[in-house]
Amino acid sequence: MEPIKAGIVGLGRLGKVHASNVQNYIKDLELVAACSVVPEELKFAKESLGIQKGYESFEKMVDEAEIDAVIIVSPSSLHTKQIEYAFAAGKHVFCEKPLGVSLPEIEQVKKVIEARPEQVFMLGFMRRFDESYRYAKEIVESGEIGKVTLVRCYGIDPSSGLESFVKFAKNSSSGGLFIDMAIHDIDLVRWFTGEEVKQVWAIGNNFAYPELAEYGDTETGAALMKLKNDAIAILVSGRNANHGYHVETEIMGTKGMLRVAQEPEKNLVTIFDDKGVRRPCSEHFPERFKQAFINELTEFARCIREGDKPDVTAKDGLESTKIALACTKSFETGELVALEDE
Amino acid sequence: MEPIKAGIVGLGRLGKVHASNVQNYIKDLELVAACSVVPEELKFAKESLGIQKGYESFEKMVDEAEIDAVIIVSPSSLHTKQIEYAFAAGKHVFCEKPLGVSLPEIEQVKKVIEARPEQVFMLGFMRRFDESYRYAKEIVESGEIGKVTLVRCYGIDPSSGLESFVKFAKNSSSGGLFIDMAIHDIDLVRWFTGEEVKQVWAIGNNFAYPELAEYGDTETGAALMKLKNDAIAILVSGRNANHGYHVETEIMGTKGMLRVAQEPEKNLVTIFDDKGVRRPCSEHFPERFKQAFINELTEFARCIREGDKPDVTAKDGLESTKIALACTKSFETGELVALEDE
Amino acid sequence: MEPIKAGIVGLGRLGKVHASNVQNYIKDLELVAACSVVPEELKFAKESLGIQKGYESFEKMVDEAEIDAVIIVSPSSLHTKQIEYAFAAGKHVFCEKPLGVSLPEIEQVKKVIEARPEQVFMLGFMRRFDESYRYAKEIVESGEIGKVTLVRCYGIDPSSGLESFVKFAKNSSSGGLFIDMAIHDIDLVRWFTGEEVKQVWAIGNNFAYPELAEYGDTETGAALMKLKNDAIAILVSGRNANHGYHVETEIMGTKGMLRVAQEPEKNLVTIFDDKGVRRPCSEHFPERFKQAFINELTEFARCIREGDKPDVTAKDGLESTKIALACTKSFETGELVALEDE
Amino acid sequence: MEPIKAGIVGLGRLGKVHASNVQNYIKDLELVAACSVVPEELKFAKESLGIQKGYESFEKMVDEAEIDAVIIVSPSSLHTKQIEYAFAAGKHVFCEKPLGVSLPEIEQVKKVIEARPEQVFMLGFMRRFDESYRYAKEIVESGEIGKVTLVRCYGIDPSSGLESFVKFAKNSSSGGLFIDMAIHDIDLVRWFTGEEVKQVWAIGNNFAYPELAEYGDTETGAALMKLKNDAIAILVSGRNANHGYHVETEIMGTKGMLRVAQEPEKNLVTIFDDKGVRRPCSEHFPERFKQAFINELTEFARCIREGDKPDVTAKDGLESTKIALACTKSFETGELVALEDE
Repeated sequence: MEPIKAGIVGLGRLGKVHASNVQNYIKDLELVAACSVVPEELKFAKESLGIQKGYESFEKMVDEAEIDAVIIVSPSSLHTKQIEYAFAAGKHVFCEKPLGVSLPEIEQVKKVIEARPEQVFMLGFMRRFDESYRYAKEIVESGEIGKVTLVRCYGIDPSSGLESFVKFAKNSSSGGLFIDMAIHDIDLVRWFTGEEVKQVWAIGNNFAYPELAEYGDTETGAALMKLKNDAIAILVSGRNANHGYHVETEIMGTKGMLRVAQEPEKNLVTIFDDKGVRRPCSEHFPERFKQAFINELTEFARCIREGDKPDVTAKDGLESTKIALACTKSFETGELVALEDE
Repeated sequence: MEPIKAGIVGLGRLGKVHASNVQNYIKDLELVAACSVVPEELKFAKESLGIQKGYESFEKMVDEAEIDAVIIVSPSSLHTKQIEYAFAAGKHVFCEKPLGVSLPEIEQVKKVIEARPEQVFMLGFMRRFDESYRYAKEIVESGEIGKVTLVRCYGIDPSSGLESFVKFAKNSSSGGLFIDMAIHDIDLVRWFTGEEVKQVWAIGNNFAYPELAEYGDTETGAALMKLKNDAIAILVSGRNANHGYHVETEIMGTKGMLRVAQEPEKNLVTIFDDKGVRRPCSEHFPERFKQAFINELTEFARCIREGDKPDVTAKDGLESTKIALACTKSFETGELVALEDE
Repeated sequence: MEPIKAGIVGLGRLGKVHASNVQNYIKDLELVAACSVVPEELKFAKESLGIQKGYESFEKMVDEAEIDAVIIVSPSSLHTKQIEYAFAAGKHVFCEKPLGVSLPEIEQVKKVIEARPEQVFMLGFMRRFDESYRYAKEIVESGEIGKVTLVRCYGIDPSSGLESFVKFAKNSSSGGLFIDMAIHDIDLVRWFTGEEVKQVWAIGNNFAYPELAEYGDTETGAALMKLKNDAIAILVSGRNANHGYHVETEIMGTKGMLRVAQEPEKNLVTIFDDKGVRRPCSEHFPERFKQAFINELTEFARCIREGDKPDVTAKDGLESTKIALACTKSFETGELVALEDE
Repeated sequence: MEPIKAGIVGLGRLGKVHASNVQNYIKDLELVAACSVVPEELKFAKESLGIQKGYESFEKMVDEAEIDAVIIVSPSSLHTKQIEYAFAAGKHVFCEKPLGVSLPEIEQVKKVIEARPEQVFMLGFMRRFDESYRYAKEIVESGEIGKVTLVRCYGIDPSSGLESFVKFAKNSSSGGLFIDMAIHDIDLVRWFTGEEVKQVWAIGNNFAYPELAEYGDTETGAALMKLKNDAIAILVSGRNANHGYHVETEIMGTKGMLRVAQEPEKNLVTIFDDKGVRRPCSEHFPERFKQAFINELTEFARCIREGDKPDVTAKDGLESTKIALACTKSFETGELVALEDE
């Protein structure tokens, strides 16, 4: 059986990860087209990954390349428009997070997606496809730890990237810490509890890189969230983990507690030397979620092949963005922010 | 040299721990008098611990027993009155937390204590005397982890005690979760950061024991606190840790992060059996802080002997109570609560 | 580019793992032929894995199927004969461990293999392709832990398999504990030290399943080995790890020490519940070495494609078998056994 | 009740530890006499520890000081003579390991001790009084891990002490690695299994400090031991642990496995910084076994007070020395060594 033919748009850092995964590890998916406005990226796609056709225009790729699916890893502000175009053309779509950058456009694209249920749409919340998170989810679902009372999520980027991030923040906006970093954690809170957020309070500081404040960004932030059923969620997001890429999730239940990556261990090696007894850490997200990135596109292909619906939906994209925006508003105003009911 | 002679008031669970520590492990302190309204407790003190003189009246013990120091482990509501009486009589005083139950009486006793600087007063924040906390404090002081950006404190009692606590909560008031459990953690936040709290938001739930809500108590609570310098503190307090007594503290700094008792390991034994690879846990506070309880009274004796001032002061008692009350108010009203400046 | 076409012989437990890996995860390899004397296995290969051609005769598969490579997962006693046949037919060969069951036949097949250096031969010591072992190897090679003084290897099968193993041992021979279980560990000792073994003493016992002794097998065994440069190796092999599949390797050097899988953690999840704080464990070798099995065949394909030589050679198969046989002899005679120099 | 009065002989490194423990932490024991041929040590004892009477002659101290008990921390070669003298004088005796340096003198002192069962004799195998070892022992006794099949003991001194040890080894003899370091581990093997050793093979190397070989010492050694019931014991002793003082013990049973100090964690603090996630380690034996040293003398006092027999006997001293000598013989000859039956 021939693999499903796909085109990719965006070949930056994460785009290259996805493209390389498809070409090397995912048997049922094959990239035959790539779109980028950077000529070097198209050259790379052709020469290193064997992606034969290069396009500068997304619309042209969708119209002309013989593809069934589109993988969107372009700048966030383009996501909704590209999803709509590809969906209208009958393509299955995988789109990196976030679904979009404003609520109205997200709400609109959600309608477009939901109107064509026979096409697969999947949002790149890859953590749900990480083996450890899946294992944790199974335990939670089994009832083994009882009813979830509290979820604590840490998402802290490595310090090694901070300096370059400061430069980046000068010139463009990440959307701020809660939009940029916390969105994955917000999705996990919703996924593990099955509950929506009711109210949030978010605070933060910039002790290591005070200049971040000038650019509207934050080094270390925290949010406390009350869920609709009174369960508690705590988020800590940051850009300054000296030991590596610290993504940790805790799910406290009435009968037990789980921690995923309590220590962000790189592998199974323990080093005993003059620095003590230590576990080397994951250095960045491509390392920590290497397999999860492969798994999510494997699942995307499976859904297309078997006519199945992915677990991650447009609604997940919408709700998580609402919450991230509420955190941002609370951080900016210093006040409690309530999420309105629909 | 003869050990310092002391009297103890209160021989309940924790009183027995202190009394037994003094008689068995603290060379420079000796209990020669005990006060209790429960005859069995005085009998126990005499027969098992060799405390010769028993009193029903605290005042009588202070007046008549030949003692230089008093150890107060009586009900919280009696603390301030007893401290004042003992201080007026020229005795050194060690008092269990909390310093008192209302702000006005705490403010008053603080003045009494500060008026007689030649007498030793010490409050029982024993965690500061735990070897692991002291080690963490040294690292923080050394600047090794940079400036403190966030402190996260978990203080969760074991589930094994929950049923009896529910019964207790029916009949009397613990002051609520934040007064009863979080006070130690609040002291740690102040100790590690050297900062006061500016604003808090506290929430909670009662999923395992809904009846707790009826008695004004809470099973699992969390507070987010903004410190005056914009550092962040997160408290999680609870009564339902299935694995044991979970007291964990994290200090995040600009250059590194510390965790004290990330897992509440009982000792150095790891068990590999059909339940997986596991570390048995501390079961309750007398086990976890066994040595800290001994250390704090050893330090109390040393301060008396050497004319030194303990690190834990009446001000610490006052400020931590203010914060715990602010958490309680926030929890009850659902609103952000600001701590007023003095 | 078309994937390399291959045939597999043997579709038992491990054969199915390899076959499924190739069909699902290895882009540059494709099974087009399978050989088994069990009709159900050929049916499974065709229906579940899309392997179109089934053979009862290995020779026929090699002669008739249009394949460039052969993957041998047949009973150990057939390995050398099949390698020789396939090699004579110009096929690349991947063969599961052990290379063979007697030294003369291994020495002969080694000559056959070495006579045709343009064909790829690779032996299935998959641990060398596990991410954690590769990381450890890099650290050792870098000199970071100094000169290797001692290697300790544990290879202990889960208790959950013991009962069925006892039944199996009744009817057929595994070759004994050191041949069957320790061979991977012996390879690791040679790989990490770059040294050969000089002398061994091996002992063991059968406390849980005394009947194993009747069938010439052992439940728990240990060997102490002196390497030619006086470095030390310690092996513990067994069939009765209650917590899971315990493969642990320690490399002690003059400047530091490494442990690979000190605890056989299943993933990054920690569970806190009434059993303590625990890490779930890998249950069996297909789970623990899932990715390593994929990696080794990926490497096999890469060597074929790029004309490279695998790191694992026929010599590795020969030397490790010699050592395993020496351990067995020592265990049986109770005496020290020296390995003769070539 | 007055504390038991005792005299100490030997105020070197470990002698000071014991003396300080008695004076500061053990309520029922008091040092009133000290013996040393080094005037500074007697001065220290008087001025820093309040030990009033100083003696140059052990015999004189025993004869003249008003003491009920003697604590022997003198050079190993003096142990048996001093025990005999003190025992003849009716004193209770605590003696540091080893009981003696030659089998005949140990056998003789054992008879002397056993002839006066009303006097307390206790040997300083302090590990049996470490909280973690006691916990492990309880689990083993309870049958929870089944029948013991294998015990692995690591006793490795920190590298930080190696340079000074090399100098020391030049001038005097430690008795060699197995007598000096492994004796505690040998005691643990006997304690946990309740079995005697039948046969040993011991090997070693000196890769970091080759000069040690010239002085008859060894940097890293290992012994494999067959116990009388066929259980297995593995010893690794060394002088070059870069991460700290590595004393680790594993007890494998038919139903489970225990590890004591799998990682020699200093306390409950975990550090997350640019070196990874690490646990600081115990630096040396006085730190690791601080509480065990206090516990063992507390137990010594309790036995005297209550007329009880300590768990550690002269026989334990004799048997462990026999085994250590057998290891030494095996290491020197390269041969298997059998321990003769009595």
